[in-house]
Amino acid sequence: MVQSIPEASPAKWHLAHTAWFFETFVLSPHLPGYRPIDPKYRTLFNSYYNAIGGQPARDTRGAMSRPSLEVVHEYRAHVDFAMEKLLARDISPELNALLELGLNHEQQHQELIVTDAKHALWSNALRPAFEPSAHSVAATTIRPLSWIPFEGGVYQIGHAGEGFAFDNEAPRHNVYVQPFELASRLVTNGEYLEFIQDGGYARPELWLSDGWDHSRTAQWQAPLYWEQRDGEWWYFTASGMRAIDLAEPVCHVSLYEADAFARWTDLTSHSNARLPRESEWEIAAATAPIVGNFLEQEAFHPAASPEEAGLQQLFGDCWEWTHSAYSAYPGYRPVGGALGEYNAKFMCNQLVLRGGSCATPQSHIRATYRNFFPAHTRWQFSGIRLARDAQ
Amino acid sequence: MVQSIPEASPAKWHLAHTAWFFETFVLSPHLPGYRPIDPKYRTLFNSYYNAIGGQPARDTRGAMSRPSLEVVHEYRAHVDFAMEKLLARDISPELNALLELGLNHEQQHQELIVTDAKHALWSNALRPAFEPSAHSVAATTIRPLSWIPFEGGVYQIGHAGEGFAFDNEAPRHNVYVQPFELASRLVTNGEYLEFIQDGGYARPELWLSDGWDHSRTAQWQAPLYWEQRDGEWWYFTASGMRAIDLAEPVCHVSLYEADAFARWTDLTSHSNARLPRESEWEIAAATAPIVGNFLEQEAFHPAASPEEAGLQQLFGDCWEWTHSAYSAYPGYRPVGGALGEYNAKFMCNQLVLRGGSCATPQSHIRATYRNFFPAHTRWQFSGIRLARDAQ
Amino acid sequence: MVQSIPEASPAKWHLAHTAWFFETFVLSPHLPGYRPIDPKYRTLFNSYYNAIGGQPARDTRGAMSRPSLEVVHEYRAHVDFAMEKLLARDISPELNALLELGLNHEQQHQELIVTDAKHALWSNALRPAFEPSAHSVAATTIRPLSWIPFEGGVYQIGHAGEGFAFDNEAPRHNVYVQPFELASRLVTNGEYLEFIQDGGYARPELWLSDGWDHSRTAQWQAPLYWEQRDGEWWYFTASGMRAIDLAEPVCHVSLYEADAFARWTDLTSHSNARLPRESEWEIAAATAPIVGNFLEQEAFHPAASPEEAGLQQLFGDCWEWTHSAYSAYPGYRPVGGALGEYNAKFMCNQLVLRGGSCATPQSHIRATYRNFFPAHTRWQFSGIRLARDAQ
Amino acid sequence: MVQSIPEASPAKWHLAHTAWFFETFVLSPHLPGYRPIDPKYRTLFNSYYNAIGGQPARDTRGAMSRPSLEVVHEYRAHVDFAMEKLLARDISPELNALLELGLNHEQQHQELIVTDAKHALWSNALRPAFEPSAHSVAATTIRPLSWIPFEGGVYQIGHAGEGFAFDNEAPRHNVYVQPFELASRLVTNGEYLEFIQDGGYARPELWLSDGWDHSRTAQWQAPLYWEQRDGEWWYFTASGMRAIDLAEPVCHVSLYEADAFARWTDLTSHSNARLPRESEWEIAAATAPIVGNFLEQEAFHPAASPEEAGLQQLFGDCWEWTHSAYSAYPGYRPVGGALGEYNAKFMCNQLVLRGGSCATPQSHIRATYRNFFPAHTRWQFSGIRLARDAQ
Repeated sequence: MVQSIPEASPAKWHLAHTAWFFETFVLSPHLPGYRPIDPKYRTLFNSYYNAIGGQPARDTRGAMSRPSLEVVHEYRAHVDFAMEKLLARDISPELNALLELGLNHEQQHQELIVTDAKHALWSNALRPAFEPSAHSVAATTIRPLSWIPFEGGVYQIGHAGEGFAFDNEAPRHNVYVQPFELASRLVTNGEYLEFIQDGGYARPELWLSDGWDHSRTAQWQAPLYWEQRDGEWWYFTASGMRAIDLAEPVCHVSLYEADAFARWTDLTSHSNARLPRESEWEIAAATAPIVGNFLEQEAFHPAASPEEAGLQQLFGDCWEWTHSAYSAYPGYRPVGGALGEYNAKFMCNQLVLRGGSCATPQSHIRATYRNFFPAHTRWQFSGIRLARDAQ
Repeated sequence: MVQSIPEASPAKWHLAHTAWFFETFVLSPHLPGYRPIDPKYRTLFNSYYNAIGGQPARDTRGAMSRPSLEVVHEYRAHVDFAMEKLLARDISPELNALLELGLNHEQQHQELIVTDAKHALWSNALRPAFEPSAHSVAATTIRPLSWIPFEGGVYQIGHAGEGFAFDNEAPRHNVYVQPFELASRLVTNGEYLEFIQDGGYARPELWLSDGWDHSRTAQWQAPLYWEQRDGEWWYFTASGMRAIDLAEPVCHVSLYEADAFARWTDLTSHSNARLPRESEWEIAAATAPIVGNFLEQEAFHPAASPEEAGLQQLFGDCWEWTHSAYSAYPGYRPVGGALGEYNAKFMCNQLVLRGGSCATPQSHIRATYRNFFPAHTRWQFSGIRLARDAQ
Repeated sequence: MVQSIPEASPAKWHLAHTAWFFETFVLSPHLPGYRPIDPKYRTLFNSYYNAIGGQPARDTRGAMSRPSLEVVHEYRAHVDFAMEKLLARDISPELNALLELGLNHEQQHQELIVTDAKHALWSNALRPAFEPSAHSVAATTIRPLSWIPFEGGVYQIGHAGEGFAFDNEAPRHNVYVQPFELASRLVTNGEYLEFIQDGGYARPELWLSDGWDHSRTAQWQAPLYWEQRDGEWWYFTASGMRAIDLAEPVCHVSLYEADAFARWTDLTSHSNARLPRESEWEIAAATAPIVGNFLEQEAFHPAASPEEAGLQQLFGDCWEWTHSAYSAYPGYRPVGGALGEYNAKFMCNQLVLRGGSCATPQSHIRATYRNFFPAHTRWQFSGIRLARDAQ
Repeated sequence: MVQSIPEASPAKWHLAHTAWFFETFVLSPHLPGYRPIDPKYRTLFNSYYNAIGGQPARDTRGAMSRPSLEVVHEYRAHVDFAMEKLLARDISPELNALLELGLNHEQQHQELIVTDAKHALWSNALRPAFEPSAHSVAATTIRPLSWIPFEGGVYQIGHAGEGFAFDNEAPRHNVYVQPFELASRLVTNGEYLEFIQDGGYARPELWLSDGWDHSRTAQWQAPLYWEQRDGEWWYFTASGMRAIDLAEPVCHVSLYEADAFARWTDLTSHSNARLPRESEWEIAAATAPIVGNFLEQEAFHPAASPEEAGLQQLFGDCWEWTHSAYSAYPGYRPVGGALGEYNAKFMCNQLVLRGGSCATPQSHIRATYRNFFPAHTRWQFSGIRLARDAQ
């Protein structure tokens, strides 16, 4: 029931809100005779849909001692039962699309339960483990980062055709992309530690102006969940506090830190390193298999890159910050009604992340998937892949 | 586990902190061989004693999902068991004083569990009842307010002699008091409603400057827990939302509102009404029996004044705001060591309240008892007794 | 000397800072024997260049009573005198580029003096006029808005070749643009008033999520400088308070308001209206003559659109919000050293505006020029041009 | 025109506001046919009198570029001229009291011009001198602090009889005071430096709880205006930055620092030192001559204590913090109407200071004078006199 920061929610709330989604958008309009278990829930578990009506302030979800977890489970059973009734009927293609949206919405909240619970447990001075037996296999060696080149020209990105996608992934459209290169794997803790040790958090010339201000105010010295003990760096994981593994990808960094790291890499190694654009990432990922370290592995922690050539870790492990602002694709039209608020109203002051993380369900992710968060966000499993212009 | 405002704490925290108090101040220094159940608790459940060491930020107590309630109960059992061992030994007078302090400390947190739980439940959009069967007997009639006169001169106030008292009640000392009168009972909801209806919340001339600013910012329109529904005023009680009872004392008002109400009464009725000084209150209460509507009644709600002559409601029902700043009595010396922080370091920007409330254990209160809160505080059961200079 | 909001600066500061720019980046490194008039100015008049060293907090510029205006004029004379000495020497192409940058920097601050002074005067309860005789010719009629179509395909945008441009306008590069249409003129006060009267500021479904929150908190009801008096809308202009002119372009709106207006237009007229992308704007403006209502007109106020066919008001009048996040062009490299901070470190959480305003010097603007501000900014002369996908 | 903190005001505002006081409270109601020079000034230069109407937000006074200083001088001349007309008439005792209040009000603002200008100049990175030739005579030796005893009993404090006093000094009334001792002089910079060097700013056990929080947040390390340069302490004075003089009284400390210093002295020297109560101070000062280092000396800086026996520095040099909350004397009634807001509405969360400072006009101060400020205030010339219970 803990809400340790306003942007995270208690697990109980996630359970209720995902049932609310089906009740509000599927059952109430489409199942004749459906009766809500409690009409007050329409407001109580609304997240941000103004077209549905009011909603409790986001940062008060931790105070929701009632309904109890037991009652929330009854609520879910009530909704599940009604859903089964609905599914026994003929389902129109429009309704089917709604059902798919509801299922994908629920998968998003499955991921949030992991990220939010991690933050809630870490907020506790005892640093209790989330899943004591969770672990990722430690790498003994790690392949040096190499650059994978891509040609420039007109490409198509975005979703079209079969299969579910959110409205913000459409329409598929042409983009002109200059030749570029993508790093073969994610940036590791070891590489990021060099940035820290080189004074990365104390050198304003490496940072975006907003990032520098934010970092100073928040007194950042390392990624979220890192703590220094007797000169050594530890981090909080699903299995509690552990010494950092240098081979694993760095995780829980903001866009500001990712961008400062890229600038530091560029200055230090004359590599022209920068963060990728979302079009570049999607072009590279378009034909890649969707395999990786996902929620299903139950490691709840990113793993070191495989010792293989070619692009690694595109999916799973860490969401990859791009330097692309989250905005509408050309020709984009939000779906009508309240569900138009799902994605469209956030198209300002957020950056796109790609590829999913170790907390993302495998069936939820795809090459065209656009996640988005404000630049200072760190509680998601967010990491860094470098890019550069073709040399 | 809810913490709906920073100044309120989850019940689980209260349970652990009161055990911590005995462990830290009684068992660790005085029971040879005592071993804490978990050394981290020394920091984890410290409220504000800097001499003991660090402490989690006050507003994060709601995030303390671990230790679980079950483990906290084990902690209490562990401490209780050790306390029984200690009590089987010879108790020095000094140790006895510490034990008394620990018991009185626990009583204070018993009261806070009631006030904090009330706020937490009210913060829930469902407004669940705390104790559905709790109730106070509704009054059919209410005796008009009369003024009880007291002579001026040198009096003694403060604690001396037998019986427990906090250090801030001592030493007993002379004060010179001008002749004054005290209202025979607390201000009622009905009287306060007239203030509201006469524009009390919109007339700056009635308010202290700080109070006006605070009231504007917080958009106060009525006491805490009051809500207007279809033109009628309701309030949140232990048994849920109820229409206000005009005969009951007004409760959950800040010093600012109490002071504005007194000024309004003065201007409206040329009564010279004002809030009492703490010395005046204590002089009036010095010989009064400690009877009233306390925690033990389990009404968790103030009751209308008895239909009797003389000073009513001095104890129980509502803490009574005085306009006396909480400060050291002449000759006051805080106890040494960490326990000196118990009361002394709050002697700035707080006002004294007297008499206990419907959430106070009866054996906890006395005429010399000094409670204190900042002027904007409303979540305590705080009400208004008027005073005036002798006419 | 007034600083009415942190993002605006006193005119005296602008005078000193632009001299500082020449002293710091041109004279100190390039004029042998140059001696600063006061070495403390290097810090005092630094705006945000961390590579140069410290700087006073931005919001304290209004407290800079010393040096006096007279001493600042002496400072400027000292710098001017040294600049003349420098200009009498051989100027390398690199130094020449620096000089051009300094001149363009000074033009930016000329514009800011106008915008900041307007805000400072409006902050005064007397609403004094800035230039009582300033005026724009009132339009009697206004041509209805029409849509100018552009074909899709690969275009080139960005600066290349002769003539000055800031580093953020380069390199010139290919973009793929879908067919689109641009509104023939800016949105007028009359059209915007319909949005207000249709409840535009009270309908969350029209707003970006951040915009809605910001608008609520800031209690926006109309553009900056608008005030309602006896039911009529007035605004503050260079010549004081005036009744709004319905034919003039709406000005001093944020990106949030511009975007909400576009969405309202779309919903109301099924026009598919939206804000333009910066590439679309630049393609349309690439061959347009740079004529319009600029600083030189000394109207300090946008004028109604000419009664002519074709694209009007592309330059001057109001900066035009685009929905493009301010970011690096492909292949962009900031200039090295401290001047790399000029533009690069702001490439996050800002939106691009195009075309200049009635406060921009005519010689300062061009089709590739990229201005940028956070989405909530209103004190600049910022207006709205609509766009839409080809129908 | 600088307003470097919200509680300080530009000198121009002080000039206008004091004229406004005479216009609003004296001329408009009492001089038949008086016409304000500009009716808008009634609102524009109102400080906080809600009964007079609205007022600009306090923290915007620095933005008041209009009316110009010249126009403000015209305003003052206009008011002066009318005042002379009024003074040529018969003056009722009531009107005479108003005139006295206006003159005393103006003296208060004379002091504020000094304190506010000092802060404004210090806020400038150049640290310009206010009066370069101002100085106080440096002491070569300083008499050790001794304790002056006073007997306990019933005393009278407060104003009665002839001569001007503010309403908050009345009525004269009995108080019972325990025997006490007062330090013979103010605490010196040298003594305060020992507190700093003993870790005074880093030891929470010395501080009030509010004071510790405030000090941490504001990152206090020394009194306001102190700066450490190469290991030596300097402070900002009317004649610019100077090395601190160890014999001078410490100045520009908050109540929090004064209280922490007293507690440190008590713990270090077992002296039972504390801050005085205002009644104690007044009893000691009741018969003392009103001589000292005042505004008229034009030192604008406190001077070292004379080498004489007995109570020194009671008047002038530094306002002396008491630990008495500013509250109504028994029997106090604020004057009616708007002027009732002068003093009464601030009787919460402020502490009383006594004795005047080097910025106070000599004729303005007296033994019964009660100044008051919030506990964190430092920009006034506020210092420390210790007291203790009789030993």
